[in-house]
Amino acid sequence: MTDKLLNERELSFQLYEMLDTEALLQRPRYAEHDRAVFDATLETARSIAAEYLAPHNHKGDANEPTFDGEKVTLIPETKAAWDALAEAGFHAAHHDAEDGGLQLPEVVLRACMAYFNAANIASAGYSFLTIGAANLVKSFASDALRQRFLPPMLDGRYSGTMALTEPGQGSALGDIRTTARPATDGSYRVFGQKMFISGGDHELTDNIVHMVLARIEGAPAGVKGISLFLVPKFLVDQDGNLGPRNDVALAGLLHKMGYRNTTSTVLSFGEKDGAVGYLVGEANKGLAYMFQMMNEARIGVALGASALAYQSYIHALDYARERPQGRLPGAKDPLSPQVRIVEHADVRRMLLQQKTYAEGSLSLCLYASSLFEDAHTAPDAATREDAAELLDLLIPMVKSYPSKYGVIASDLGIQVLGGSGYIREYPLEQYYRDNRLNPIHEGTEGIHGLDLLGRKLGYHDGKGYRLFLAEARASLDRAAGDPTCAPLAAALGDALGILERVTRDLQAQVAADAHLGLSNATAYLDLFGRVVVGWIWLRQALVASRALAGGALGSEADFYQGKVHAARYFMDWELAGLDSQARLLSAGNRLCFDMQNAWF
Amino acid sequence: MTDKLLNERELSFQLYEMLDTEALLQRPRYAEHDRAVFDATLETARSIAAEYLAPHNHKGDANEPTFDGEKVTLIPETKAAWDALAEAGFHAAHHDAEDGGLQLPEVVLRACMAYFNAANIASAGYSFLTIGAANLVKSFASDALRQRFLPPMLDGRYSGTMALTEPGQGSALGDIRTTARPATDGSYRVFGQKMFISGGDHELTDNIVHMVLARIEGAPAGVKGISLFLVPKFLVDQDGNLGPRNDVALAGLLHKMGYRNTTSTVLSFGEKDGAVGYLVGEANKGLAYMFQMMNEARIGVALGASALAYQSYIHALDYARERPQGRLPGAKDPLSPQVRIVEHADVRRMLLQQKTYAEGSLSLCLYASSLFEDAHTAPDAATREDAAELLDLLIPMVKSYPSKYGVIASDLGIQVLGGSGYIREYPLEQYYRDNRLNPIHEGTEGIHGLDLLGRKLGYHDGKGYRLFLAEARASLDRAAGDPTCAPLAAALGDALGILERVTRDLQAQVAADAHLGLSNATAYLDLFGRVVVGWIWLRQALVASRALAGGALGSEADFYQGKVHAARYFMDWELAGLDSQARLLSAGNRLCFDMQNAWF
Repeated sequence: MTDKLLNERELSFQLYEMLDTEALLQRPRYAEHDRAVFDATLETARSIAAEYLAPHNHKGDANEPTFDGEKVTLIPETKAAWDALAEAGFHAAHHDAEDGGLQLPEVVLRACMAYFNAANIASAGYSFLTIGAANLVKSFASDALRQRFLPPMLDGRYSGTMALTEPGQGSALGDIRTTARPATDGSYRVFGQKMFISGGDHELTDNIVHMVLARIEGAPAGVKGISLFLVPKFLVDQDGNLGPRNDVALAGLLHKMGYRNTTSTVLSFGEKDGAVGYLVGEANKGLAYMFQMMNEARIGVALGASALAYQSYIHALDYARERPQGRLPGAKDPLSPQVRIVEHADVRRMLLQQKTYAEGSLSLCLYASSLFEDAHTAPDAATREDAAELLDLLIPMVKSYPSKYGVIASDLGIQVLGGSGYIREYPLEQYYRDNRLNPIHEGTEGIHGLDLLGRKLGYHDGKGYRLFLAEARASLDRAAGDPTCAPLAAALGDALGILERVTRDLQAQVAADAHLGLSNATAYLDLFGRVVVGWIWLRQALVASRALAGGALGSEADFYQGKVHAARYFMDWELAGLDSQARLLSAGNRLCFDMQNAWF
Repeated sequence: MTDKLLNERELSFQLYEMLDTEALLQRPRYAEHDRAVFDATLETARSIAAEYLAPHNHKGDANEPTFDGEKVTLIPETKAAWDALAEAGFHAAHHDAEDGGLQLPEVVLRACMAYFNAANIASAGYSFLTIGAANLVKSFASDALRQRFLPPMLDGRYSGTMALTEPGQGSALGDIRTTARPATDGSYRVFGQKMFISGGDHELTDNIVHMVLARIEGAPAGVKGISLFLVPKFLVDQDGNLGPRNDVALAGLLHKMGYRNTTSTVLSFGEKDGAVGYLVGEANKGLAYMFQMMNEARIGVALGASALAYQSYIHALDYARERPQGRLPGAKDPLSPQVRIVEHADVRRMLLQQKTYAEGSLSLCLYASSLFEDAHTAPDAATREDAAELLDLLIPMVKSYPSKYGVIASDLGIQVLGGSGYIREYPLEQYYRDNRLNPIHEGTEGIHGLDLLGRKLGYHDGKGYRLFLAEARASLDRAAGDPTCAPLAAALGDALGILERVTRDLQAQVAADAHLGLSNATAYLDLFGRVVVGWIWLRQALVASRALAGGALGSEADFYQGKVHAARYFMDWELAGLDSQARLLSAGNRLCFDMQNAWF
C-alpha cells in the first residue's frame, strides 16, 4: 500500500489553480526555467519518494536506530534514500545555481518535500534538517566557514542538525546553559548537553554539522546572550580535509513513539577539552538568526503534518472503498449483499473530516510557502513587504492548524479501518504515531497562541492582521457573485466578524493585564486557525466552482464537486461552535487562569 | 513512576459520596459483608496492581508476545500477575459464595478492575476476558457444561475468550460464516476463522475456553441464525481431565499499536476434522446471549478507557508540578527563577480538560455499574426494572464518552510533557497507544450512535430516556438552592433543553426516513454524551459543595474545590458549542449523507 503517495491531481490543483506558480517564471530568478522543469522536478521527487523512501517506511519504524556505545546503526535503506535525495539535488534545490543549487522556487521545493514526507517522514528528516542547517550557514556564517562547510552540506557529504533544546529547558530558550569559551585561535570550546537533537548522530555522512545555541562566557542572561555556533562532529581543516573527532559525544538515543528512523539524541559537548565550535555571525545574536529561519522550519513541520494527514486520508479512503461491511439502515434482508463501508454516512463523515483537514492544511502550507517566495522574490518592494508581514501573522496558524488537525485526521484514519487501523499490519497507526510529534516540535500550540496574541497581532501596528482581513474580504467579494460560493462566503463572513470582535476584546484584555489576558490564547489560536482554513476552503471552492461552470466533466467534475462539498462541510461543521468559543474569550473566561495547583 | 495508580481519595469519593455503596450492605446478597470488606478488597486490588501488574506494564509493551509456530511466549511476569489475580479471587469476585465466589457487588469489583486497568491494561486483559466468558458459561450453558468448565475458569486454571469477529466481518455480526456441524454425540464440529481474538492463545493456563459465535448448518441467514458454542483449546472429559488438543489452531498473532501484552490472534477452527464445540443454550440464540453480556463488557471497556485517562492525567500533573520552564507573561527578568509548568495557564487548561474527562468518565462508569447492580439486586421490582431501562439507554454514552474523551485525555498527557511525552522513556505515549483501542472494540461510536438513535431511545416507548431526564431534572432541583451549584444547574438546564429539542427533531427525521435520519447519529451521540457527563459533573459539584459548606478543611477542601472548579470548567468549555451542534442536527444537515464516493 506504500505506493499511494499524496495525489498528483491535488498537488497540481494547489500549485497551478490555487496558486499561480507558473507566474513565478516571469521573475528574473526563475527566467531560465519553464513549467516543464517544475513538473519534471515534482515527478523526480515522486519517483524518489516511491522508490527510495516509501518501501522502508514500515521497516524503519519496526527497526529503529541502535547505538552500541560506539556507533549508530540505521537500516541500510536510509543511506540509499539519503544518496538519492542528495544526488537529485534536493539538498540544494532552492539555492542559486552558482552555489550548485537548482534555483527552484520555495513552493515547488515544498511540494517535493510533501512527497518525501508522505513516503517516509523519518528517513526524509535527515535531509530536512540538513537543508535547515545549511540555510543558517549560508545566511549567517563568515565566507571562510561557508566555503568550508556549505558545499559538502549541499552535495550530501555532510548532514546537519539544529541543537537548541537541553535537558533542563525546552521551549524557554532564554534559559539554555551550554557555554562557549573563546579559544586563542578565534574559535570557541563548547561545553554542555543538548537533548532531543534529531539526526544528532548516525553514519549516513562523512560529517555532521551541528548548529548549536550556546552562551559565550560572560554573555548577558536570557535571550540576549545566546550565540550560534557551528560545531562539526569531525574537525575539518582549511582545505576541507576531515580531521580527528571533535569533542561531541552521543550520550544516548531517545526512543520515540513514532518518527523512529530519525535518531533522537542526547549529545554531550566538551566532556574532554571542549568541543571546537565556530561562532556564526555576531555574538549574542544566535536566537535572532534562528528566528529568521523559523518561518521555514514551521512551514516545514506543518507540511509534514499535512502530508501524513493526507496519507491517513487516502489509505482510509481506499480501505473504505474496498471493505464490505453491513447494510444501510432500513435494509432488512440478511441475504442482500453487504455494502462497502464508504456507503455508511458516518464513514463518509470521517472521510470528509479527514479531507477538509488534509487538503485544507496542505493548501495552507503551500500558500504560506508562496508568501515566503513573494517575500523574497516578488518584483516590487511593497509586495515583498506585505507578503512578509502577512506570513509572520499567519505562521502561528500555519504551524498549529495542520499539526493539531492533521493528527486528528490520522486518528480518524485508524477509526475508519477499525481493528485493522489499530494493528501494525496496516500503515494507519504509524501515520498517527509519526504525526503526533508535529504538535510538539517547532513550538506547541501553547507557545504559538502566546506568540499570536502577545506579539504577532501587534507587529507594525497590526499590519499583517489587516492584510489578512483584506485578503479574506476580497475573497468574500469574489464569492458574492457566484451562486455556489455565496452561501459559503456568508458563513465565512460571519466567522470573520466573530474573529474581529474577539480579537478586539482580547487585545483590550491583554493591554489591561498581560498574564490574565493571554490565559486563553490557545483557544484564540484555534479559533483563528479555523477561520484561516475556512478562508482557504472558500478559495478552493471558488476555483472549483469556476471550473465546474467552465464545463469540467467526468473525473474532473468529481474532483471539483468534492472541493465544493468539502468547503460546505467545513463551513457547516468545522466552523460550528466558533461563536460559543468566541463568547468565552470575549468574556475573559478565567477558569483556567483561576485554577489552583492544589485543586487538581 | 508506575507506583501512581489512580487516586484512592477519588475512588472513595465515587464509591461512598457520589454512590451510596454502603447501602448495598442492606441487601440480602451482601448482608454478610461490611464496609471494611469492601475497603479491604479495594486495598488488595491496589496492592496486586502495584506489585504484580504495574511493574511490567512497560516491559510487556516493549516485549510483546511472540509465536514460534508451536507456542506463544509472554514475559513471565504475565503469568505471575494472572496467578495473583486468580488466587485473590478476582476471577470469581461477583459470583456467589456457593460457586466459589466472593459475592461482591459489581461496583466494588469494577473499582478493583480500575486499579488493574490503570496498572497494566494489557496483562489484566486475560482476566477480564475470562470473567466475561465465565459469565456466559454461568448464565447460559447446561448444567453439565457448567460443572465441567466453570470451576476451572473461576479458580484460574482455565482462561476464556470471546470469539466473534472474522476476517470478513467486524461490526456486522449477522454476516459471520463460521459453521457448526452436528456430530452424533450431541456436540458439534466447528469450521471457520476468527480474527482479533484477544487472549486467543498463550501458555498462562492449562486450557482456554473459546466462546464462539457460529452458524449451525442450515440455520437462518443473518442474526437469527447465530448460535453460541463453547470450544476448548484442549478437550476435557466428563471428569474434568484434560484430553488431546482440539482442532483449534493459532494461525498467527496480530501486532497492535498498544495493549501489546494481550495477544491478538487469528484462530483457525476445524483445519482437520472440525473443532469440537458444545452448544451453549439454545440454537440460534447466540447473539441474544452475547447481547445480554454486552452491557457489562461495554462498561468494562469504558472503565479501562477511564483508568488510562486517569493515569495520563496524574502523570501529566506530576510532571507539571515538578518541571520548571519559562516565566509567566510579564516577567521580563531573565534571572528570575523559572516557574513550574503547572503555573502556565495553558498547561492548567490541559490538566483541567484531562481532569474533567478522566474523573467524569470514571464517575459515569461506576454510576453505570451501580445501575447494573440495582437492576440485579435492588429489593423492589420497580427499582430493578427502572435501573435496567436507564442503563440500557445510557450504555451508548457510557461506552463512547470515556473511550473518545479518554483518548483525548491521553493525547493531552503527551502534550503536557512535550518532547518527554513523545518518548517511551515516559509512560504517556503508551497510555495513548493502549487507550486508542477503546473507541474500536465493543462497538465504535458509529455503531453506538445508530444503537442510541435507532433503537435505545425508543425502547419501551422511551422509558429509559424519560428516566434519564427525570434524574437530571431532580439534580437541577437539588442544585437550585445551592448558590455554588445554581449557575452550574442553569447551564446544564440549557443543555438538557437543547437535548430534548434535538432528540424530538431527530426522532421525527428517523421516522420520516431512517437512512437519512440516522446519518448524523454519531454527532447526536456525542452531544448526548456531553450532556450526560455534564450531569455527572453537576452531581459531583453538589456533593463537593455540601462538603465545603460542612466545613471541609485543608487538602479535603482542596479536593472539593477542585471538583467544583472542574464542574464549572465543564459547563463553560465542554458544553460550549452544544447549541451549534444541535442546530445542525435539528436542521437535518445532509452534507455527510449527500457526499458521493466519487467526490473524495
